[in-house]
Amino acid sequence: MPGTWAISGVDLHVDVGSTRVRGSLEAALREAIRSGRLPEGLRVPSSRQLAADLGLARNTVADAYGQLVAEGWLVARQGSGTRVARRVPQRDTREAAASAPFARARYDLRPGTPDLSSFPASAWIAAMRRSLSTLPVEALGYGDPRGRAELREALAGYLGRARGVRADPAGIVICSGFTQGLALLCSVLPARAASSVGIEGYCLPAFPEIISRAGLRPFPLPVDEQGAVIETLTDQAGVVLTPAHQFPLGPSLAPSRRSAAVDWAADSGGIVVEDDYDGEFRYDRHPVGAMQALAPDHVVYLGTASKTLAPGLRLAWLVLPDALVEPVLTAKACADYTGVLEQLTLAEFITSGGYDRHIRARRLAYRRRRDMLVRALTSDVPDVAVTGIAAGLHALVTLPGGVSEEEIGVRADQRGLAVGRLAQYRAGGDDHAPAIVVGYAAPPAHAYSGAGARLVAALTTAPHPPPS
Amino acid sequence: MPGTWAISGVDLHVDVGSTRVRGSLEAALREAIRSGRLPEGLRVPSSRQLAADLGLARNTVADAYGQLVAEGWLVARQGSGTRVARRVPQRDTREAAASAPFARARYDLRPGTPDLSSFPASAWIAAMRRSLSTLPVEALGYGDPRGRAELREALAGYLGRARGVRADPAGIVICSGFTQGLALLCSVLPARAASSVGIEGYCLPAFPEIISRAGLRPFPLPVDEQGAVIETLTDQAGVVLTPAHQFPLGPSLAPSRRSAAVDWAADSGGIVVEDDYDGEFRYDRHPVGAMQALAPDHVVYLGTASKTLAPGLRLAWLVLPDALVEPVLTAKACADYTGVLEQLTLAEFITSGGYDRHIRARRLAYRRRRDMLVRALTSDVPDVAVTGIAAGLHALVTLPGGVSEEEIGVRADQRGLAVGRLAQYRAGGDDHAPAIVVGYAAPPAHAYSGAGARLVAALTTAPHPPPS
Repeated sequence: MPGTWAISGVDLHVDVGSTRVRGSLEAALREAIRSGRLPEGLRVPSSRQLAADLGLARNTVADAYGQLVAEGWLVARQGSGTRVARRVPQRDTREAAASAPFARARYDLRPGTPDLSSFPASAWIAAMRRSLSTLPVEALGYGDPRGRAELREALAGYLGRARGVRADPAGIVICSGFTQGLALLCSVLPARAASSVGIEGYCLPAFPEIISRAGLRPFPLPVDEQGAVIETLTDQAGVVLTPAHQFPLGPSLAPSRRSAAVDWAADSGGIVVEDDYDGEFRYDRHPVGAMQALAPDHVVYLGTASKTLAPGLRLAWLVLPDALVEPVLTAKACADYTGVLEQLTLAEFITSGGYDRHIRARRLAYRRRRDMLVRALTSDVPDVAVTGIAAGLHALVTLPGGVSEEEIGVRADQRGLAVGRLAQYRAGGDDHAPAIVVGYAAPPAHAYSGAGARLVAALTTAPHPPPS
Repeated sequence: MPGTWAISGVDLHVDVGSTRVRGSLEAALREAIRSGRLPEGLRVPSSRQLAADLGLARNTVADAYGQLVAEGWLVARQGSGTRVARRVPQRDTREAAASAPFARARYDLRPGTPDLSSFPASAWIAAMRRSLSTLPVEALGYGDPRGRAELREALAGYLGRARGVRADPAGIVICSGFTQGLALLCSVLPARAASSVGIEGYCLPAFPEIISRAGLRPFPLPVDEQGAVIETLTDQAGVVLTPAHQFPLGPSLAPSRRSAAVDWAADSGGIVVEDDYDGEFRYDRHPVGAMQALAPDHVVYLGTASKTLAPGLRLAWLVLPDALVEPVLTAKACADYTGVLEQLTLAEFITSGGYDRHIRARRLAYRRRRDMLVRALTSDVPDVAVTGIAAGLHALVTLPGGVSEEEIGVRADQRGLAVGRLAQYRAGGDDHAPAIVVGYAAPPAHAYSGAGARLVAALTTAPHPPPS
């Protein structure tokens, strides 16, 4: 029979009579934390106390707590007990906001992370060794806020070739990630009377957070099958777009919308920020070139190595209109820089052709994964629809009628699977049919079919019925 | 005879009749830029035009421009001529503010940089290879804003052992440099009606810049032979100190002042920020332990690898009072993180003993350099006084009566030598006798005696007399 217990006045339902008591307790705790009913920082009862309250073995509760600590929902500190973890704002993680900050579900299909097990460690070390052997001594000193010239030159060539970006090394500024890049841009956007910045109505929660923290107001645009509805823009100071592959909904920004965006920027003086987070990964055709090429004076191209290599490297780059270079550098002077060894290693990796080779291999691997996902869902879960272009590291899977995202989240949880939920990316966008965001790039290769099987199971199986 | 010419109404004196026309032109340009009379961004005349104005060979002017471009005073861009370079705010460079942003004087005795040629590249690569081979896959993903646990644990041990810091890994936050660390702290200091932050009256220009940029007011304290005069503090939100070795004046913060600072913090709620930039390097006695140990709840310990390893690594750490951890992490979430490979490599380097061995070797080398400097000045330039404790990577050299810092700067320049000038570090401090700040750690080993010889020459030789 279900047991109800309260932590600080919060009722939680735990199916203590079922055969999966520990799993049920874990799921109940996760849900309560996810929804905010157990707030960050709250000290949970000791395992001894909770076990007594619920009539369970203490080990069961201790193990459940341990699992939630490992997943990052709870934190255990010497002398201050076990508390609900502080939830990290979603930054650039492309992970479902309801997921634990540093959770490692046994099978992780949350969007945002590439297959980390495929990081080319040997090639990276070799590139670092080569760059260290030819290092000018001064390179290890305090450096140019634009970042190393070697990397800016290598990127100018690479971006021109691979993404059609019109880049001059002098107009490139290296930064420590998308977050720093966007924050720097927000700090230099032209000041207007009512300074708002356009965002896509479904986007990473980090975008409105970074914009708000800069004292600007996020202004959501509708998104349809052609991408963001640019015509909605008025006098915003800028707009942040994901033109190559809208995250999370999936369309590519149509040519007419691209033209409309650059026309708007030229007319209004607003800046278009092109977040090209996965532009190298297009599976059904040659990648569409970056918007930046249409109007380098009005579009900032922002790219990173987070999806092509690994988020942990913290390597990103801004290709700036001439007029923004000095303001961004001035803002950057109080923001600190990216490590030079990493910069030089990437420069060497690009120059040696290693970067291109790695991306080609990953493109093939991720394309195969997407194909497998579509085939499995098409044959086993015909009620769902996989939408969005054949690109990138994620796909939107619209749920069958009557099924909620939350329910799928619980079913997935029960199977040790984590997925993204569309609602967590809603930033003022219009209603959308319930859907999950599947990051098919995340699992290591050996775990992918297991993850896929669990996804199919979660989408097709009813939840465990409550014990009679 | 001296020639006077004007750029945009700015008069410059150039000794065009001397045998060192090019050097004289270069010196005049540097001085005009340094003093701000030729402002940032100004387009200088073409070499052809200036040569015609001065009656010089065009090559002479072109070569002078070329040298100033190489030193970073001027920037040459295709299609937009040659302009005065944007001056980078001094951040954490410990270099004379009048020096070019990225200048590489042939002999560089400016403070702030360790001997970059002694960076332990092989040991670093080996440590990185080891850490990559045992890397948990998730380490390459989006991470914990506190930084890698491996590094926080290694630092807790190292700092406890080497600096007497009372550190719990959970209270350590890794950041990308001193600048980011101080900026994060400023953003979370308790808000007060008139929020000011104490600084030492002579300090790095970056300190007041970072504080001001955070919307707080820098409040300079006098500095005497016992260090900062703590009794001057009233209701500041915090105070930034360099207790182990005051930069740039050189005393160690006396025990009574340390007690006064922690008493002030406990009474007022203000935060003491201990910048322990060179605490491992003490030559006349065992290093004095960090102030943080006196009051971990009121003192933030801020350290970096910039002087022990290299500034280019961008590795720094905050040891925080419990109450500041969450606020700093929240502020950090929109500020981006440090690359994980660098963090793991440093953790491995510390754990393997390599960090300690490297620091021991550098301590010995820098101690020898300081001894050589003191001997040379004592014997050859008895009019000067080398002051400050026998520690760190710099020493203050007080000039003989009647000689200005600017004159020594020019004499040094003429000999291809760069030094720091005390005036550039004045942040509201009391008058001090003219002095130069000598960064004896900066030159590579083979260049040190040459640098020293030029320093002695600059301090003893009169400037070139003007041609009759």
